[in-house]
Amino acid sequence: MKIMHYSQVSPRQFDAEAVKGVTGRVVIGKADGAQHFCMRIFELSENGYSPKHSHEWEHEILIHSGKGEVWQDGKWVSVSPGYTVFIPPDEEHQIRNTGHEKLVFACVIPSGVPEL
Amino acid sequence: MKIMHYSQVSPRQFDAEAVKGVTGRVVIGKADGAQHFCMRIFELSENGYSPKHSHEWEHEILIHSGKGEVWQDGKWVSVSPGYTVFIPPDEEHQIRNTGHEKLVFACVIPSGVPEL
Repeated sequence: MKIMHYSQVSPRQFDAEAVKGVTGRVVIGKADGAQHFCMRIFELSENGYSPKHSHEWEHEILIHSGKGEVWQDGKWVSVSPGYTVFIPPDEEHQIRNTGHEKLVFACVIPSGVPEL
Repeated sequence: MKIMHYSQVSPRQFDAEAVKGVTGRVVIGKADGAQHFCMRIFELSENGYSPKHSHEWEHEILIHSGKGEVWQDGKWVSVSPGYTVFIPPDEEHQIRNTGHEKLVFACVIPSGVPEL
């Protein structure tokens, strides 16, 4: 069993044209012996956003803290702590921070695709 | 895409000798078209606890709010918001609320086992 606060995991920063102010951590993955799916925790800084993209694998997301919006079918939908988001394969999506605090969420993906 | 607060999902209550004050919800599962893994949200009321048990499938957990403890190798380990827990297959585990507020956590399991 592995018990730890997500902040103890080494972060990877993402900052480019398509993605801004994003910190990602693989908290449970292949290295832990997780065979079927992988949990990542993302932090988006104020004004930060993930890339607008789609891919063959799904996301299962829980908004942990902060305030943000999710791009769904051409419009932004507000989310806050306790919201869950299921993004099926090949559906375009993006998440952005619309608050003043960090937006923190868990995002689970199947094994066999890049963990981060 | 499915976006909703977990509290919008119909809850199932668990109260017996082995499990006390537990409310479970399948927030993303088979009914949503999730093919590989299933996200549940559990709330444990004050003094509530999940069963002490083990099974063939793993858990990937994020503590969302509240304060509790996880049974690991014969002792209780404290957890609070932002803690993640990986419980490999066949490892005995139990979670209990040690605070005065609800203990809320996400628990992801592979598809093909009972969702709740």
